[in-house]
Amino acid sequence: MKKYERLAQQITDQIALGVWHPGDRLPSLREQVANSGMSFMTVSHAYQTLESQGVIVARPQSGYYVAPKPLARPPRALEQVTRDEQVDINTYIFDVLQASTDAAVVPFGSAFPDPRLFPLAQLNRSLSSVSRSANAMSVIENLPPGNEALRHAIARRYAMQGMNVSPDEIVITAGALEALNLSLQAVTEPGDWVIVENPCFYGALQALERLRLKALSVATDAQQGIDLDALEKALQEYPVKACWLMSNAQNPLGFTLSAEKKQQLMALLARHQVVLIEDDVYSELYYGREKPLPVKAWDSQGLTLHCSSFSKCLVAGFRIGWVAAGRHARRIQQLQLMSTLSTSSPMQMALVDYLATRRYDTHLRRLRRILAERKQAAWQSLRRHFPAAVKIHRSESGYFLWVELPAPLDAGKLHERALAHQISIAPGRMFTTGTLWHNYFRFNASWAWGEREEQAVKTLGALIREALKDTPHVAESRAE
Amino acid sequence: MKKYERLAQQITDQIALGVWHPGDRLPSLREQVANSGMSFMTVSHAYQTLESQGVIVARPQSGYYVAPKPLARPPRALEQVTRDEQVDINTYIFDVLQASTDAAVVPFGSAFPDPRLFPLAQLNRSLSSVSRSANAMSVIENLPPGNEALRHAIARRYAMQGMNVSPDEIVITAGALEALNLSLQAVTEPGDWVIVENPCFYGALQALERLRLKALSVATDAQQGIDLDALEKALQEYPVKACWLMSNAQNPLGFTLSAEKKQQLMALLARHQVVLIEDDVYSELYYGREKPLPVKAWDSQGLTLHCSSFSKCLVAGFRIGWVAAGRHARRIQQLQLMSTLSTSSPMQMALVDYLATRRYDTHLRRLRRILAERKQAAWQSLRRHFPAAVKIHRSESGYFLWVELPAPLDAGKLHERALAHQISIAPGRMFTTGTLWHNYFRFNASWAWGEREEQAVKTLGALIREALKDTPHVAESRAE
Repeated sequence: MKKYERLAQQITDQIALGVWHPGDRLPSLREQVANSGMSFMTVSHAYQTLESQGVIVARPQSGYYVAPKPLARPPRALEQVTRDEQVDINTYIFDVLQASTDAAVVPFGSAFPDPRLFPLAQLNRSLSSVSRSANAMSVIENLPPGNEALRHAIARRYAMQGMNVSPDEIVITAGALEALNLSLQAVTEPGDWVIVENPCFYGALQALERLRLKALSVATDAQQGIDLDALEKALQEYPVKACWLMSNAQNPLGFTLSAEKKQQLMALLARHQVVLIEDDVYSELYYGREKPLPVKAWDSQGLTLHCSSFSKCLVAGFRIGWVAAGRHARRIQQLQLMSTLSTSSPMQMALVDYLATRRYDTHLRRLRRILAERKQAAWQSLRRHFPAAVKIHRSESGYFLWVELPAPLDAGKLHERALAHQISIAPGRMFTTGTLWHNYFRFNASWAWGEREEQAVKTLGALIREALKDTPHVAESRAE
Repeated sequence: MKKYERLAQQITDQIALGVWHPGDRLPSLREQVANSGMSFMTVSHAYQTLESQGVIVARPQSGYYVAPKPLARPPRALEQVTRDEQVDINTYIFDVLQASTDAAVVPFGSAFPDPRLFPLAQLNRSLSSVSRSANAMSVIENLPPGNEALRHAIARRYAMQGMNVSPDEIVITAGALEALNLSLQAVTEPGDWVIVENPCFYGALQALERLRLKALSVATDAQQGIDLDALEKALQEYPVKACWLMSNAQNPLGFTLSAEKKQQLMALLARHQVVLIEDDVYSELYYGREKPLPVKAWDSQGLTLHCSSFSKCLVAGFRIGWVAAGRHARRIQQLQLMSTLSTSSPMQMALVDYLATRRYDTHLRRLRRILAERKQAAWQSLRRHFPAAVKIHRSESGYFLWVELPAPLDAGKLHERALAHQISIAPGRMFTTGTLWHNYFRFNASWAWGEREEQAVKTLGALIREALKDTPHVAESRAE
């Protein structure tokens, strides 16, 4: 193959791979010469060949463009789906979450609240303000532990709840997820025992697996929260290193522990000197009059790493969270320096700017009100369209409903069938290592309730009825 | 203690902790009542007490403020420095890097190029443009694998070098560091053997430690690059899982492998079917006429995960990198979903906007020219002020000089002494698991050369001379 043919083939391959789209301007002859090191003659010959093949078109005074109608695409050169690599809970969770990002799918399985509820105009104003104030050295001011003004603003929000948290113990992270992962890593060694809830946020299970930790799942209930007797038993019987849990608007249950129970929980952990990694990402999404305290509020011994973020209540896309890490703050910074280095500088600055406008609390009040209304609307719709045998657990916070199908039904199968109708749900299997919650699913109720949502719930109801028909003994098995 | 006293004490504590600074406006009585759940009387009484103690001051029509002169600060309630937790290479690296972020320190130890070399005004324009175009759903478009337009732009830059990389195999990450970490995790299990260079980027050593992998360090030289015979021996004798290296402007040496050697290296890895994790963050910082190809260019079997970023050549603070991961792309996305979830949405969009202006290559040409000039100026200064026994290795790319002290001298000790003079360097100890490079240091030559820099080099030279005096046999030991 001659040089010009090689170049022509290369460009054809690149178009097939999707590097260049129909209508894209190709590099000019001059640019191509500079980049390829080939002669002008060779490059020019290659382009003419491609033009004669109809692969590219020349536009006078403008350059060469990929022909508007692409050639038939050859089979994909790169294999994206490597199913056999690790078919496990992670692949399953990944697939479920990916399904919810398709705009054509009704995202009842999504973990995030409707982003249209966030104050976009004001956040954009803050972004625009950063674009005026950022200077070359900003990046250094935003290195770990993170922007000082941002850490102060967060410390002041703790202070407003009567909690004394120094800005010096706060580390800004890429969302709460990084905060939680770094916290777990900071206080454990592979092989250690860690307590999680059952069911729990799947991120905890993934983190444990990634760090080769052993999980002790403690029963957690949509009416009562974590079972303290079971927790105590676990603490007595195993050399537990840490406990990862959510005390406010627990994911997936939505349950918030009472202040009394939080105090008991902390006393128990303190007695066994077990570190608490507290995931508190929904703390701002309470429905009551007062923001509930985290368990950390009862911690007098510095055992708690309290993790939260702005992703569920202000802006998902900035990816800014934090951990109030106490004496572990330095270790967390070290670990961050090894993994993501730091959080993006303009995002931190934009949040500082937004928080300085003092509109955050006004936004949160509105957000809480709308989420409560939407959850009510969703609950009513589920009641309307689901068979009576389906139990819907509704909590006074957040935006999740926890739906219990009659025991023989499998929420995973329902999810598969629902997806065929462009509807996603989050099956219970995502939230546990065992099979305990196979007949449950988490339902995201943060969406504005319209015809599309109503229709989707109706379809879900029909799918459940259909599944019930295949298991005629449901009524009996529920009565037992 | 009465209720109002408790609240007063709490606010005093918060001021001591730095939550509220002198001059800060405190929450209003009304806000404090709403947050604390205490009565207006109690809150008002607490504020009056604090006012009478001079801790806070009332300003009519405005509210309560922290008194301008703070009380003497009590001893810090929170211990930040937990030295005994893990005194190891990580702590050492952390301390060295932290030292370079202090504005008072001349940052010859820094890993980043002078941020004043980056096109701030244009990047800010892109940020401002994003602030106009971002909408509520943008966040979904920027989820892993990342913004499609950005992945396309990156694929096209590969294409300009004659490399066919599909946008579908590219995953956007929080800088190259996350890309490298996720890549390593995707292809190894704890206990696996991994080849690194000696010396190498410390991030590789940290990642290996974090993932409990075993390191095989292969000799790498400032004149020749990696020793292929040693590499082959390692591949023959150990069940190696992956090889992590830099073929362009290697950190810390600055050396770029020849095309021929890159090809041999790839052939060797292919023969042993060992995955290559290629760290190519300096690829744009070549001084020659043509951008050097990565080793991946010779990979016909999809063994290479090619990692790079915009942090060293366009903007450090955005924290945007990527990996061209081939068949591992899906696994990388899964791992990302477990650790940081995704990269920030506005940052990806700002980069897309910037790259669309087609000013990137103009910027890069200017950046390369200035870095070459500055490195030359720094080299001359080092020659001027360092004893003749010091050897300075200078490469034709990037912004590092690799400085070799006479063997008995310890660059770590020099670093400590230099820090006392507000000068940082990066001791060789950071780049190796052993002690091989104890008398070397990496010198960041990206700074505009002025009186401050010249003086700092003079001081370094004097410190080296002083150290040489304490080791009278240097001349002899070099002659042997």
